[in-house]
This record gives sequence, structure tokens and C-alpha cells, in this order.
Amino acid sequence: MIPIDDSPLTRDGKVLILAYDHGLEHGPVDFEDVPESANPEHVFDVATHDAVTSLAVQKGIAEAYYPSYEDDVNLLAKLNGTSNLWRGEPDSAVNWSVDYAHEIGADSIGFTVYGGSNNEIEMVEEWREAQEKAREYGMATVMWSYPRGQGLRNANTPGSIAYSARLGLELGADVAKVKYPGSQEAMEETVRVAGKTKVVMSGGSKRSDEEFLSNVKSVIDAGGAGLAVGRNIFQRENPERILDALEKVIFEESTVEEALDAAEAAAPEAE
Amino acid sequence: MIPIDDSPLTRDGKVLILAYDHGLEHGPVDFEDVPESANPEHVFDVATHDAVTSLAVQKGIAEAYYPSYEDDVNLLAKLNGTSNLWRGEPDSAVNWSVDYAHEIGADSIGFTVYGGSNNEIEMVEEWREAQEKAREYGMATVMWSYPRGQGLRNANTPGSIAYSARLGLELGADVAKVKYPGSQEAMEETVRVAGKTKVVMSGGSKRSDEEFLSNVKSVIDAGGAGLAVGRNIFQRENPERILDALEKVIFEESTVEEALDAAEAAAPEAE
Amino acid sequence: MIPIDDSPLTRDGKVLILAYDHGLEHGPVDFEDVPESANPEHVFDVATHDAVTSLAVQKGIAEAYYPSYEDDVNLLAKLNGTSNLWRGEPDSAVNWSVDYAHEIGADSIGFTVYGGSNNEIEMVEEWREAQEKAREYGMATVMWSYPRGQGLRNANTPGSIAYSARLGLELGADVAKVKYPGSQEAMEETVRVAGKTKVVMSGGSKRSDEEFLSNVKSVIDAGGAGLAVGRNIFQRENPERILDALEKVIFEESTVEEALDAAEAAAPEAE
Amino acid sequence: MIPIDDSPLTRDGKVLILAYDHGLEHGPVDFEDVPESANPEHVFDVATHDAVTSLAVQKGIAEAYYPSYEDDVNLLAKLNGTSNLWRGEPDSAVNWSVDYAHEIGADSIGFTVYGGSNNEIEMVEEWREAQEKAREYGMATVMWSYPRGQGLRNANTPGSIAYSARLGLELGADVAKVKYPGSQEAMEETVRVAGKTKVVMSGGSKRSDEEFLSNVKSVIDAGGAGLAVGRNIFQRENPERILDALEKVIFEESTVEEALDAAEAAAPEAE
Amino acid sequence: MIPIDDSPLTRDGKVLILAYDHGLEHGPVDFEDVPESANPEHVFDVATHDAVTSLAVQKGIAEAYYPSYEDDVNLLAKLNGTSNLWRGEPDSAVNWSVDYAHEIGADSIGFTVYGGSNNEIEMVEEWREAQEKAREYGMATVMWSYPRGQGLRNANTPGSIAYSARLGLELGADVAKVKYPGSQEAMEETVRVAGKTKVVMSGGSKRSDEEFLSNVKSVIDAGGAGLAVGRNIFQRENPERILDALEKVIFEESTVEEALDAAEAAAPEAE
Repeated sequence: MIPIDDSPLTRDGKVLILAYDHGLEHGPVDFEDVPESANPEHVFDVATHDAVTSLAVQKGIAEAYYPSYEDDVNLLAKLNGTSNLWRGEPDSAVNWSVDYAHEIGADSIGFTVYGGSNNEIEMVEEWREAQEKAREYGMATVMWSYPRGQGLRNANTPGSIAYSARLGLELGADVAKVKYPGSQEAMEETVRVAGKTKVVMSGGSKRSDEEFLSNVKSVIDAGGAGLAVGRNIFQRENPERILDALEKVIFEESTVEEALDAAEAAAPEAE
Repeated sequence: MIPIDDSPLTRDGKVLILAYDHGLEHGPVDFEDVPESANPEHVFDVATHDAVTSLAVQKGIAEAYYPSYEDDVNLLAKLNGTSNLWRGEPDSAVNWSVDYAHEIGADSIGFTVYGGSNNEIEMVEEWREAQEKAREYGMATVMWSYPRGQGLRNANTPGSIAYSARLGLELGADVAKVKYPGSQEAMEETVRVAGKTKVVMSGGSKRSDEEFLSNVKSVIDAGGAGLAVGRNIFQRENPERILDALEKVIFEESTVEEALDAAEAAAPEAE
Repeated sequence: MIPIDDSPLTRDGKVLILAYDHGLEHGPVDFEDVPESANPEHVFDVATHDAVTSLAVQKGIAEAYYPSYEDDVNLLAKLNGTSNLWRGEPDSAVNWSVDYAHEIGADSIGFTVYGGSNNEIEMVEEWREAQEKAREYGMATVMWSYPRGQGLRNANTPGSIAYSARLGLELGADVAKVKYPGSQEAMEETVRVAGKTKVVMSGGSKRSDEEFLSNVKSVIDAGGAGLAVGRNIFQRENPERILDALEKVIFEESTVEEALDAAEAAAPEAE
Repeated sequence: MIPIDDSPLTRDGKVLILAYDHGLEHGPVDFEDVPESANPEHVFDVATHDAVTSLAVQKGIAEAYYPSYEDDVNLLAKLNGTSNLWRGEPDSAVNWSVDYAHEIGADSIGFTVYGGSNNEIEMVEEWREAQEKAREYGMATVMWSYPRGQGLRNANTPGSIAYSARLGLELGADVAKVKYPGSQEAMEETVRVAGKTKVVMSGGSKRSDEEFLSNVKSVIDAGGAGLAVGRNIFQRENPERILDALEKVIFEESTVEEALDAAEAAAPEAE
Repeated sequence: MIPIDDSPLTRDGKVLILAYDHGLEHGPVDFEDVPESANPEHVFDVATHDAVTSLAVQKGIAEAYYPSYEDDVNLLAKLNGTSNLWRGEPDSAVNWSVDYAHEIGADSIGFTVYGGSNNEIEMVEEWREAQEKAREYGMATVMWSYPRGQGLRNANTPGSIAYSARLGLELGADVAKVKYPGSQEAMEETVRVAGKTKVVMSGGSKRSDEEFLSNVKSVIDAGGAGLAVGRNIFQRENPERILDALEKVIFEESTVEEALDAAEAAAPEAE
């Protein structure tokens, strides 16, 4: 972990990553409710919102769409990922070299590590290579740190999630993206054991504005750095509205209620 | 994906790849009905037809025959492929380096990815290396994207085929070659989720002129870029006739009937 | 093995490594009894004690905290390690390259080898690469040499532990870190077969001051070079007190009683 | 495949490779009937016969004996091969790098590929590396193309043998060494589907002069380029005699009877 | 195989390698009978005897002790080896690079190959890399060639041992170290099929002076080049005495009786 508060991945030390690799990880099914979300241009447009500190995509999306947005979007190169057509022990292919990510203009790299998988050792060694190469370029490093796999006893206990955040610190991640551990207290412990590594919550599947914002607020109150979110943005009809609210909660220390009111005032929800 | 409308792989933004790697993938049995099709010279001659934007072959065929055709044929280097003597979980050997393909004069590369195979991760990482090396040379990239393997639930559903086209986009293919998903509507969805990546239909096994051209027409009407075809050309006694018709359907917005009439006028079928 | 008595890893030929990779190897659970031990700054502060000849940490911890301590702490780069989320045949991921460890300022490298594991051959070959690269930089090499794995009949017999020390000598470790073999006599034999390779005892799980110091004394009396210790330091409320005592036993030839008395005088234990 | 009629591997476009890697592949048992055949000098002497266009040996034999014969023998470096002490799924170790083969003075390389083996993909990728490196040096490439392995249904049918010759063409072999497919008609088909790649028959186990020469004649009449032969030469008491006859059949369009008569006249067989 | 009669590995074309890697291969148990044999200095001292043409050790032993003996001992770098803590299919880790062995001052390399093991192919390919690198430095190459493994039918028949010597020749060993095949006649055949590769007998477990010397004499009489021996030297109380006798048998064409008498005269055995 190195200091990244001057990097484009952060704003006032906080982080809001818009993640958009679902077309690879889950397939087009994730775009069904909001069909325009299949179009990367739509999501790049959303990522120009001031609240978004970075947009995480796979190589092909970056090659095709980032050139039109390089002045307005900070690019986070999600280096590995795997389709869910394949259903074996958790693993993730390295789809993008750091050299080429840097050439395309990425400011930071993202990398999934499945602690507890039978492929943990291989994944962690691939992370090593990517992390050290990123250091040569001065790129920030984000670990998607998810306990998952055959060897694992308790994937989603607070203990496992705290452990996954610590893996981020021990292995050199500037930011660790982890599951919400179920309570603010558990999140505090997760943040504490991650030391100088920033902890951000993984957005997860779509839920109501209030429930989602409450989770985020709890992360911030626990000392977390913010959020890496996909479906809770692009599966909404009005992503700008939820981004307005997130901006208040993450960067302006607002309560959930204040954030929702402000968003409602700016862009009233259709009845 | 990068823009390739200026590349020799396309004509007016459309694509007709003549694929001729059947001697490796299926063996000489594919040449039985039209014995001269075993002779690469015969197929290179066919590929000089104006409708063909590129000829896809393995390394050995290119080494031996391309030097005589380099002024008349655009070469697509099919980099991987495997005999069907071997019958394990879908996989494909990398038979040709991008460096050597470029040296021989290829304008673009082709690469098979079996999404859902237990070898998906290895194949996708081999694709990464080839794709990024191709970028260094400015070569266009074509993914033969076929869901296939033990881990797969539904290989040929419209959903799986749309997913395979999306893999092309996410992983940096300029063109994704996919199976026909069964209807024009499903093809439209496949083209839509592939974004800027061009979608071409895999020709598949031989069928009647009319049935085949109707499939191609449906691809074009769905917004697809064209076709990658082998057996439906070289297993015909008169490949020029079907190429005349394909040229009308793909590049001249003709109906199937117009295309067949024009082809018949130019080269009447023996009765 | 090369002479290292001039290296910062030693003091008067003796060694006291403070090991702090438990956040990776065991997870945050190791910090529960003394919560501040989760904070690397706390442990770096402890490592400034004169008795500590080196602090062993993983890459991420070094990146984040070593820059503030580089004048006061000698850094030992623990290159490999694995979470216990994964529960397969003993193995260890290489998390840190020697090049980058040297760049960050490490004076020496640490590497785990599980003799008897089905992964012994792979681990030993990874050790080879690290050891030879360390030689290029003139860094000292420490092998965490633990018999462990499916192929092993007797992991913790004196014979296996002596064998593990000999592995350190044969494979080029300057220091071999081994389990305490149960008696001073067995430790003497372990030291004897290790030849010029220095032998240090692995601290193991926490025990009483007297029991712990007696083990250390027995190592010194057996001709061992000292100790590599984690939990017996950072899981104590007053790590300075036990370090005062260790300094006496390891570097000043004191008895356990003298060491405890001196430590008590300097920092009386609360009653 | 590239044109090799100017290479030392051919004479008038025909090929007679003397193969002598049996000491590795089968062990000393192959030398029992003619004990002097265990001595590489004996076989190098045989290889100075005008009929032999190249001698195929493993690295160690070339290192030790080729320096004395470099003016009189063309060296074909057989790069891979495996003892039959090991009895797993067909595979072959790469025992010799192309760089070193070139340094020692080899004009061409030989490489075994077992199509249908579970190791086919690995072997074919090793072939790729060797073949492309050989191209850098302008060395001719010979594929020992033998269908063999668990995944194979019919290893020695005419169809499988034709397929194996086609693999040579598709994968860039200048010469494909295949089993005799049982009839001249089948050999014609094999030669036809191999296109510009020359097809040579594998000599196989020892048989009578007449039977052996009839097979060779049938290969030549079928348009094949010749023969790669070991045991049918060095397991004969008088290898020169059979080489005289082979020279007539392969290079001088003689019948089997003419060849035998001429050989008998030059070196009458003891009665 | 290249000529090595000018190399320090030989004396008058004969070879006596003192092998001392038992601390790795067997563990300290091999030093129990003669405890000082655990001390490499003791064995280096023994190796200064004129009869010893080379001392074979692992990397760590060479790093630590060879600098004091470089004027008096020729170093053979035993590159691979494995502890017997692990009990899987025969294999051997590569513990030492040729580059580093050369840097430390080794004149020759040693490498174990287990023909018939499921790891034969991997081991042979590792041998290839080491052997070809050794050629760049002009270092002699010695193959410890032992048939061993699951795939093997007859590991210690004369046929298997002759085969293992032939592997040395085919794969480029200057010296093949093999088991004694049970009779002088079998040894003659082994030497014969090894061609220009020198054959040395592996010393094996300790036996009486007379029995041991008779085996060695039989190797010499069979045309073998000598001996690679460990336990039959360092497990003796008076290694100089047996080396005196070996010198007579190997280099001076003495009978066993003459050799024993001369040794007895020089250093009478305590009664």
C-alpha cells in the first residue's frame, strides 16, 4: 500500500468506483432490466458524474469507449475476470496486461483475489506481478478481495471479511474491495485491521435506495473509504439520482435522509 | 475493440471471412464431397473473389500458398486450433505466433475461445497475449467465440450466444464470430450487447443456397457485419456462384431472391 | 550459506527476528488478545528495540509502514506466505519479488519451505530463484524450514527438525528457522548438522515468560544463533519487557533468572 | 511448409532419412540382432551412402560423433523423444533446443507429434516454437506425425494416417513422416491431402528385402517423397546392400526387381 | 557428450567422484555412524586426496565451504536433488542454476534423471536446459541415470541399467553414473552401449572393503571409467585408506589384493 490521496482514484481521500465488468462476469442478463445499460456509452456517461472517482472496466470496453471519455472519466483497468459460463473452483483469467492498461491510459488497476479457493496461490502470484508492475507506473492498486472456494469454511462471516481486508494490506493493495460484513461494528473492525489500506464496500445486488444508502453510510461511519458499485447504479432507471445521494453520503458527511432529500429535490422520482 | 473499417478485413464496414482450417479441425473428411477442396490452391483461388474480405488459414497453409496470392488475398492468421483426433475437454493449441503471422503478411488474427470449457481461463489468457501483440502490429482481431465445455449448461441458447458475443467486446475482439442464435430477433440482441464489436455468423455445416442465404440475410438485417464461412463455400461445386449471391446480400442490401437471381444469371446452375 | 556476521540481520553473530506476517498466515484472529497488535505501527515501534536485529513482514506492510522506520528498523522481506482460508496440501504463494524487496530497502529475505509437502519441489525451486537473486544483491537469506505435508511420516521428531536445518545448509540458507526439537540435546544435534548455517528457533504460540525464555536459553546453550518470534512478543501487553529479557539471554549470556530480574527491575509487571 | 528442394534434406526432390534414435526410444534391445549397430560410428558410416539424404539422431549422439562426419553426412536434429521405460499417455520430451542444434551444424529438425494423445496440445505448441525457430535459421522441418493416444478411435486407419499427413501441412512441416496406410491407393490420398508437404513413409519394424522395397516403391508410385528408415537399415547385416536398392527405387525410378538385381550384382548376399 | 579427458573431472581418462549430497537426499541419518561426516569440512578434507577427481555437493555446501578449498578440490555442482521427507513419484528439484554454479567455480555439473518416472519428461527437459547451459561454459556434464518410478517394469535388471547408460549418451551426458548391473559381463554391455559416454558405477550403500573394491575392479575391467561414491567413503572411519586402495584399482590397474595390501602398508587398520 502506498499513499494514493493524490491519485485520481480518490477525492478527499474517499473512493467511489463505478464497476462495469458484469458483461464478462455475469453476461448480458445483468442488463435486462435496464436495456440501455448494455451500452458502454451509457455507463461511461454515468461515470462522468462528479461523485464517481473511477470507472472499472475490462480491456475491450476500454479500448472501444475510453478514447471518447478520457478527459471526463478516470479509468481503472480491471485486469482479471471470468465468465460464468464456466463453473469450476473460483478462478479468474488475467485478461489485460498492466503495460497495455497503462498505454490505454488507466490510472489504477483492479484485480480479483479469491482467498480460500484452490486457485488462491496462483491468483495471488498473478496479483504480485500486476501489483509490482503497477508500482513501476505509479498506478494505484485495488484488490477485489472475496473469500470464496472449496477450502473455505466461512466465506461471509465478519471474520472472513476482515481477513480479506487484511489480505489487501499484507499483499500491497491500496484499496480493498470487500463484502459488507453485516454491521457497522464489524465494518469498523474490518477497517481497523486493514491499516492504511482503504476499505470500500462492494455494492452487490440491487436493493432499495434507502437500504443501499444506509449500508454505504455505515461504511463511511465505520471509517471506510467508500464504495465500488455496479448494479446499484446501472440497474436503476435514473443513475444520476442515486449518484447525487451517494455523493452526499460519501463526500459530504450527509445522513441518508439528507442525501435522499437532496437527490429528490434535484431529480424528483416519477410517481 | 478498435475501429477496423479502414482495415483490409472489412469492405464498407462489412465482413466476409472465408475460413479454411478444416483440414486441421476436422481432417480430410471435410474435403470428401468436393475433392479439389483439399487443395489449398483451389481455395486461395476462390478467395480472390471480390466478396471475400479475408481468408483464414493455419500457419502451414499460409507458409506454403500465401506467397503466390499475397496481391490478391487478405490473410487472416488463424492462430490456434486442434485436431479432432483428440477428444478431451474443449481446448485449442496455439500453433502460430503473432510475430511470425505478421512476418508472413497477415493483416489480422483469428483465435478460438471456448467459453465454459474447463480450459476457458487458459484459452482466454492465450487470447490476451495474442490480442495485445496484434495491437502492437496494428492487426485486427477476430474471436471465434463458441460456448462449449463441461461447465456449460446451455451452449446454444440465444442467451449463451449473446454472452459469447459480449465476451468478444469485453476481451478486445474487433470481430466476434458466433453461431446463429436461431432467429433474427435473437441476432439483434446479440449484435446489441456486442456494442462496437462487429458480429459475424459462423457458416456452419452445408445447407441449401436458399436456407443459407436466408440466415445470412437475417444477420445483416439484425445489424450484423457479415459472415465467416467455410464448408458452405468450398463444399459447393461452384463456390463462385454462392459468393456472387453473398456479395449481393452482405454488401449490396439485396434480398435473398435478388441475390439468387443475379447469381443464376451470371452462372446458371447445371440441370 | 555465506558469512553474514557483518550483515544487519545479526548482532555479535546472534539473531533476533521479529516476525509479523500473522495477518496473512493466520488472519486478524492473532491480534484479538492485544488489539493494538493489528496496527503495524505498533509492531514497527516494538521492532526499534535494540534486541531486534530484523523485522520480517510481507510486502504490503513494508510498502505502507517501512518508509517511516527505515532508519530504526532492519527490514527482512518475507517473500512467500499464504492465508489459512485455504486448506490444501501445504504450499505458499510468492507474494514479493526480490527485486522489489531490494528496492524498498530490505536487507535480507525470508522464505518458507515445507519439506515433505507434495509441493516441496515447487517451493524449493521458488526458493532457488529467490536465493540466487538475493545473492546478486548481497542480501542475507533465511529459510523458514518446516517439515509439513501429506508425504511426511514424522513432522516434529528431532530427526525431522534436524533434517529441516540441514535442508537450510544444503539449499543455501544463511539462517534456518526451525521448530524447537524438544530438548537441548536435540537442539545441539540440529545445530551441528546445520554446519555454518545459523539455526534460530521459531517462537511458536504464546507461553509464559519463564517457559519461553528457558526454550530460548536452551537454543543459545545448544549453539543456536537465536530466535525468530512473533506471537510471544506482540501478543504480550508489554513487549518491551520480554525483549529486555531476550536481549540478556541471547546477546549477553545471562541466565533466565538474571534476564527476568533485569527486565522486572526496568519495567515492573503490574500486579 | 516452405520449398526445400535446395536443402540438403532432399536429392532431386526425394528424401531418404536414416533415423537412429532407437537407443532413446526403445533402448539397447533394438541393437541386439546386429550388435555393432549400438555403435553410432557404424551408423554414421552407413549414413555416408549416397542414398541417405540425412541422418536423424538425438543431441548426445550428434555432439559425440557428428564432428567426425560433418563433411559426409547431413544432420537432422531429432529434437524430442522419450524412453520407453516410462509408459504413460504418449508424450515426448524436448531434448534439444533449435539454437544448439543449429550450432552443432544440423540442417533440419525432426519432431514427433502424437495427434490424439492427451498431450497433443502441449506437443503441438512445442512443435510451434521449434518450427518457428527453425524458420529463423532456414532449417527444414520434419514432423514425425503419428496418431496415438487415449483419445483416439482409429490410430492406423487410412483416414487417420491421411489426417496425420494433413497435420504436417497445416502446422508447417516441410516433410511429414507417416505410417504406411496399407495400400498404394491410400498412400495416394495421403499424399494428395498433404498438398505441398512432402510425405515420407516411416520404415517400421524389420521385414524382408522384397516386402520392404515393395512398400517403398508403392510410396514413390503414390507420389510420396521417400522414406525415413532405421531398423530396416541398421538391423540388416549388410546395410549398404539395401541402401543400394533403395537408391534405385527412390531416386532412379527402378522397379523392385531391378533394384534387387542391381544390389545383388554389386554385393552378392552370402549363401 | 564431448571429450572431457582434459577436464578436471578426469585423471588419465578415469573418474572418481566423491558424492556428498546425502544430507539433502537422505538426511542426517546417513551421518550417524561417523558423526564427523556431518561436517562438510571433514568431507572436503577427504576430497583433497589425489584419487578424487571431483567433489559433488549441493549449492549451499559449495557456497559455505568451497571457498576454502578451491585450490585443492575440483567442484562438481549437483544441480538437482530432493529430500526424502517427501515420498511421491520420483522427482528432483532443481536447486542450483548453472550460471550460479559456474560463478562459484564449479568445473562440471551433475543432474539426476529418473527414467521411467511419471516425471521423466519434466526431468529430462530440465536436464536439457542445464546441459546446454553447461556447454556454453565448457563445463562437463554428469547424469545420475537411475531407472525408477511407477511406469517401470524392471528397474535394476541389466537391461534397464544398460538403457540408463544409453540415455546418458543420447541426451548429452559426458559421464553416466549408473547402478552396478550385477556382473562384469553386464557392465561390459552397459559400457558398450554408452559409446563415447563414460560410465561410472554408483557406490551405493556401505559394504566391506573387499566386496566394494571387487565391484570397482569389475567396472574398470569392463571398460568403465570409474566410480561416483559417497557412503563407502565417508561412512568409513578411515576414508583415506579406502581412497588409497581405490586409486590403485582405478588409476593404476592394480588387483584388489594389491590395492588392499598397499593401503594396509600405508595405513594399517587398527585391530
